[in-house]
Amino acid sequence: MIDKDHPADFLAAGWHSGIKPEGLDFGVIHSLHPCDAAAIFTRNNFVGNPIIVGRENAASGKLQTIIVNSGNSNVATGPEGLQLVRQYTEVAAESLGIDPGLILPCSTGVIGRPMPADRMLTACREIPEKLKQSDFLAFAEAIRTTDAYVKMRGIELMSGGYILGIAKGAGMIQPDMATMLSYIITDVSIGSADLGRLIRAVANRSFNRLSVDGDTSTSDTFAILANGAAGVHVRFPEEAARMFAEFAHPITPADAASLPGMNGQSREFVSALMDICLTLTRLIAADGEGASKLIELRVSKAQSREQALKIARSIINSPLIKTAVYGADPNWGRLLMAIGKVFDEPVPIENLKIRFGEHHLNPDETDNLKIISNYLSGSEVEMEIELGLGNASETVWGCDLTEDYVRLNSMYTT
Amino acid sequence: MIDKDHPADFLAAGWHSGIKPEGLDFGVIHSLHPCDAAAIFTRNNFVGNPIIVGRENAASGKLQTIIVNSGNSNVATGPEGLQLVRQYTEVAAESLGIDPGLILPCSTGVIGRPMPADRMLTACREIPEKLKQSDFLAFAEAIRTTDAYVKMRGIELMSGGYILGIAKGAGMIQPDMATMLSYIITDVSIGSADLGRLIRAVANRSFNRLSVDGDTSTSDTFAILANGAAGVHVRFPEEAARMFAEFAHPITPADAASLPGMNGQSREFVSALMDICLTLTRLIAADGEGASKLIELRVSKAQSREQALKIARSIINSPLIKTAVYGADPNWGRLLMAIGKVFDEPVPIENLKIRFGEHHLNPDETDNLKIISNYLSGSEVEMEIELGLGNASETVWGCDLTEDYVRLNSMYTT
Repeated sequence: MIDKDHPADFLAAGWHSGIKPEGLDFGVIHSLHPCDAAAIFTRNNFVGNPIIVGRENAASGKLQTIIVNSGNSNVATGPEGLQLVRQYTEVAAESLGIDPGLILPCSTGVIGRPMPADRMLTACREIPEKLKQSDFLAFAEAIRTTDAYVKMRGIELMSGGYILGIAKGAGMIQPDMATMLSYIITDVSIGSADLGRLIRAVANRSFNRLSVDGDTSTSDTFAILANGAAGVHVRFPEEAARMFAEFAHPITPADAASLPGMNGQSREFVSALMDICLTLTRLIAADGEGASKLIELRVSKAQSREQALKIARSIINSPLIKTAVYGADPNWGRLLMAIGKVFDEPVPIENLKIRFGEHHLNPDETDNLKIISNYLSGSEVEMEIELGLGNASETVWGCDLTEDYVRLNSMYTT
Repeated sequence: MIDKDHPADFLAAGWHSGIKPEGLDFGVIHSLHPCDAAAIFTRNNFVGNPIIVGRENAASGKLQTIIVNSGNSNVATGPEGLQLVRQYTEVAAESLGIDPGLILPCSTGVIGRPMPADRMLTACREIPEKLKQSDFLAFAEAIRTTDAYVKMRGIELMSGGYILGIAKGAGMIQPDMATMLSYIITDVSIGSADLGRLIRAVANRSFNRLSVDGDTSTSDTFAILANGAAGVHVRFPEEAARMFAEFAHPITPADAASLPGMNGQSREFVSALMDICLTLTRLIAADGEGASKLIELRVSKAQSREQALKIARSIINSPLIKTAVYGADPNWGRLLMAIGKVFDEPVPIENLKIRFGEHHLNPDETDNLKIISNYLSGSEVEMEIELGLGNASETVWGCDLTEDYVRLNSMYTT
């Protein structure tokens, strides 16, 4: 029962449960049988109650069902909030006839409001009924908060099997961690140890390189579930993970094809997974709260990856650079400022080369700044800073800062 | 010749030199005789050319004249930019009949534009003529860039002498360093070693606790010049500096009165200097680009000052908190988020106490959030976060984030 829209033996649903005043606010993805799974969670010291239960459940390497509500993040809701997660996962498990330890619960929305327990419990009892009309788009809709659009990408593998990624996220996003919520489901078969290596490797080259506002959510969750229904077996051994971590960024299909200890199916899977996560990362960056432009920034010719990343993050998080990009202003002085404020990584100014899209910065050249300003007025901006110090590079994604970010966040809640 | 508006034997002027299309853009403060002096500069790895010369000149502990232009920061202008600073300080020194090494040159404005050499040189030749009509307010006006208002504070000391502080700064300000430009002149007598200790001690409790946007200027300069004309001798010995660093924050007059190794005059001087620097810090925070509110944030009952400061900076720089304050939204969930994202300083959530002005946060209490929202709608917001872990505290200053910040910075230059 493989079809082209989702991996085999997965069902999904999204509906209005009454947590938000209107719109879809409750979503479920369910596999017909237990999956090998791996998940990574927010590094924020205050975590949502679902994260506490999700960490416990994901630790076994087996998950079967993802339950997400939007409209209330169940953070800072006290022992009652945690108790409720245990209660509704049990209700959901009972209604689905599975072990409650196979459920990954997630919540996103306002922090510090009591969860409407009755609505959560009612929704969990309704799951089997709702899954009868499986609808992945409704799930993707239901997990949105300030997202302007649904974020999904699926790839059918030539070697068999399908990978589907669904994410949400627009604000409170900083590259020290996974994105807000991001789920990958697939019908290939891959062991949970391999998945654990793979999820870290891929996150580190995608969601962990994404910044909207430098803030860090209390609810971030990135999970991969593989149910094996396609009968294709995939691996990601230690030696592949080591080489993956060494690749320049972004990782190309040719890179993936050179991974050791793996067959062609596995390489295709890793390459497709990376494609999906990069696509979702870019979709989240482009949909950054109030954003009018996606920014892709590469810092290259650094002494080390660490140096490249520190400088890239200083630039991608700088409000003065974000506002300049919004204004299509080739304000390279602000780039110098942001490079120079990484106090422990001094860079000789005479080595620097700056490129916007195809256009190398050369302020002495007539019309150079005008051409770059014109380039910056598009909806996707690509920048490269060459440090001239070595061969390491890093790429990060972010967005511009607009009046709409301020409007959205000064008016959203309470 | 002590009068009430400025310390004795100092002159000042500000005029239009043509660096900006209109308005005052060139300012000078000049002492009739050489001053003991200390200065601290930006930590940005790319510094303006005036900073290079200023560091050299301030190293001697003697300065006599401060020369500032606005409209062009002379950063990233190559060897010509540095050459020009050496040239115009020599011209100014010759016109004033002093040693060029006694001049502190400063520039503020756009980065990466060639300086108009002829205008700088002409202005430097005009200095003695312009100083004939001494005018400190014109100086304060001339150093403004995006500042909405002039920032000055003077205190006449009961024990004799006068301290005058003049600052500018509105954006590209982050608490890892001094403010943009800040000058203190006084006619007390204090040796440059004592001044060196004092400037660091005071900056660390004022300008270094200030954040507008987390960005770090390439031109920051904070200097103190003391010409001794009032005949009052002041000290700030090592032992006083050590105790000063231990005081809780902000430092009270009673704290200053307990400083060891000092007479009453010295204590009054230190207390007044601290008052001036705090006032200037608050003026800069309140005038943060586009800001509608000043935020004073105290993190208390921390295990260490370092812990308090890390958490305070995470909060004061968070765009989600800055926009919530703008919207008068008591969004304490975002406070939890910002406390929790200091990954290496975990704080038990049950210990936290949050206060807005006089109002303790208690979301369970009817109208509590409404009362706090009402408090947040004022133009000054005071917040305290008690961590419940120890006895250390830190105070930082910042401002809200508004649509005007975005407008100003997306349209300012090139």
